[in-house]
Amino acid sequence: MSRAGYISSKAMIHGRIEEDVAIYGPSRVGKDTFVDRWVQVGYPSRERLMKVVKLDHSSLDNVSEGATIGDRCIVRSFSIIYDRVRIGDDVELGHGVLVRSNSTIGSRSRIGSYTQLDGEVHIGEDVIIQSLVYLPHLTEVGDKVFIGPNVVVTNDKYPVGTIQGVKIGGRSIIGANSTILAGVIIGEDSVVGAGSIVTHDVPPSTVVIGAPARPYISRKEYEEKRMK
Amino acid sequence: MSRAGYISSKAMIHGRIEEDVAIYGPSRVGKDTFVDRWVQVGYPSRERLMKVVKLDHSSLDNVSEGATIGDRCIVRSFSIIYDRVRIGDDVELGHGVLVRSNSTIGSRSRIGSYTQLDGEVHIGEDVIIQSLVYLPHLTEVGDKVFIGPNVVVTNDKYPVGTIQGVKIGGRSIIGANSTILAGVIIGEDSVVGAGSIVTHDVPPSTVVIGAPARPYISRKEYEEKRMK
Amino acid sequence: MSRAGYISSKAMIHGRIEEDVAIYGPSRVGKDTFVDRWVQVGYPSRERLMKVVKLDHSSLDNVSEGATIGDRCIVRSFSIIYDRVRIGDDVELGHGVLVRSNSTIGSRSRIGSYTQLDGEVHIGEDVIIQSLVYLPHLTEVGDKVFIGPNVVVTNDKYPVGTIQGVKIGGRSIIGANSTILAGVIIGEDSVVGAGSIVTHDVPPSTVVIGAPARPYISRKEYEEKRMK
Repeated sequence: MSRAGYISSKAMIHGRIEEDVAIYGPSRVGKDTFVDRWVQVGYPSRERLMKVVKLDHSSLDNVSEGATIGDRCIVRSFSIIYDRVRIGDDVELGHGVLVRSNSTIGSRSRIGSYTQLDGEVHIGEDVIIQSLVYLPHLTEVGDKVFIGPNVVVTNDKYPVGTIQGVKIGGRSIIGANSTILAGVIIGEDSVVGAGSIVTHDVPPSTVVIGAPARPYISRKEYEEKRMK
Repeated sequence: MSRAGYISSKAMIHGRIEEDVAIYGPSRVGKDTFVDRWVQVGYPSRERLMKVVKLDHSSLDNVSEGATIGDRCIVRSFSIIYDRVRIGDDVELGHGVLVRSNSTIGSRSRIGSYTQLDGEVHIGEDVIIQSLVYLPHLTEVGDKVFIGPNVVVTNDKYPVGTIQGVKIGGRSIIGANSTILAGVIIGEDSVVGAGSIVTHDVPPSTVVIGAPARPYISRKEYEEKRMK
Repeated sequence: MSRAGYISSKAMIHGRIEEDVAIYGPSRVGKDTFVDRWVQVGYPSRERLMKVVKLDHSSLDNVSEGATIGDRCIVRSFSIIYDRVRIGDDVELGHGVLVRSNSTIGSRSRIGSYTQLDGEVHIGEDVIIQSLVYLPHLTEVGDKVFIGPNVVVTNDKYPVGTIQGVKIGGRSIIGANSTILAGVIIGEDSVVGAGSIVTHDVPPSTVVIGAPARPYISRKEYEEKRMK
């Protein structure tokens, strides 16, 4: 059957692919995984794309090293998954999610629409990342973290300089539209209030707010407020 | 004529549809409405999409309950309109606008590129929402409101907890990149300064600025400044 | 050969075009330029689109005045380049970049994914703009400027009123998620700290931070910190 889009002859597709999807290189789409219309999987990294641009007889498919998507995932329309990405099982992506080469997403995590993992980014299991979040190269996000909409993480304290990734400890909560500066380590079970600018490390189990963000209450007190 | 894309046999198309559009379920596109290339209309809600993913013989078209778009609207490329959405007449969407199930957009409103109505969101008439705005489930926006670029509204004060929508009163102005916390009610004719973090209700006809946002001047004084 | 997408008979294509691209009007794609799948080039301005919507026998191609893209550029998937745009040589666009009519981008500049030049915007040479940046009508960006992710520039101090563009001087650095208010002039070699709200002009060679942003150190001191 003729169909729009492009599926590499090297790809292994065990899931359900809508019309007009582009799958490059030795990509693997797991069992019962749904890939929506207008999605790219196994998109070549910048370095490999440059070869296509410079060599007449190459193609995205030739240079792609493929991406791996687990079982029972959902990849909605306009998402772009680069090559060398590994996505676990039961992962759900919104629309327009961008995941660059070498990133990993743990099982059961959910990523909101137009969020970007813009470099090698590691996301744990059972993570919830909402829409329009920006995570640059070398960001690490622990298990069970929650990141609100429009959160921005940076990796360069004095642009353009040395890249230092941000680490977000397990079970932390990062409030909407907050900004986390390069190199910051956010301890486990911490909370960053909405709109905060985090310039220094946050100890575990601590709630910080403000610009620059300062300790406010403990996670225990936060949970008491939440229960009310 | 063979064409790329997908138009449901259940859809009623009275407008002008470019090539390569996907229209699912009993969707209705009004008279003189323009739907651009690479747009989805009537996209099934998460709940209904799950049926497609789990049942071999289903499809997006089968489970979609359809969307309704009025007359003389413009829907630009990469926009995604979920099912059970109702859009009035003379509405204009930028590129990549995301409108989730059960949302409504009143007549003559304009929504900027990559803005998300991410849940059941109600937008009044003659509203202007600029680009990259995030409005979550249960947000209500009154008539003639103006929302600047990159504004973030939240619906969960202590994530992950109870959802409380934000209400933005008629004729209010919400400045660029401001953050409005869950449950806040912004009175009619109010103004939120750019970059503010709104943690408490805003009385009618009041201009607030800062983090947290506090009353600054009245709407009358604001209008005097604006006239100068 | 039949292919998906649309290439105007008026377009001059010297580069490499993937499948399923839409190129309208007398657009020019330079030598060795790569245009990815699901891209629009020469998209008509709102004013010209209105003619298509209102006239039965018109089309996007008929009304488009075409865009010009130089040599050795990369235009990644989901990007939209309006008509009357001029892009220099060796320019690189991420995914989903939106460039509205009459904008210009100087040679060797790079624009991040889902960034918007939302009106007539002028970008110098050797500029780096990261992801999800919003630059409205009349913004001017000098040579060698660096703009971090999610930066928002505005052009209307008292919406909805008079439009005044922001000018960002050469070699300036604008930190992530900062907001620059309408009419502000940022001097050459200045730095705006991440998350700042810039309400007043910034003198040359000055680092500002905070909300509202105030002078903090000199660019020379900043460079000393950066070197450490």
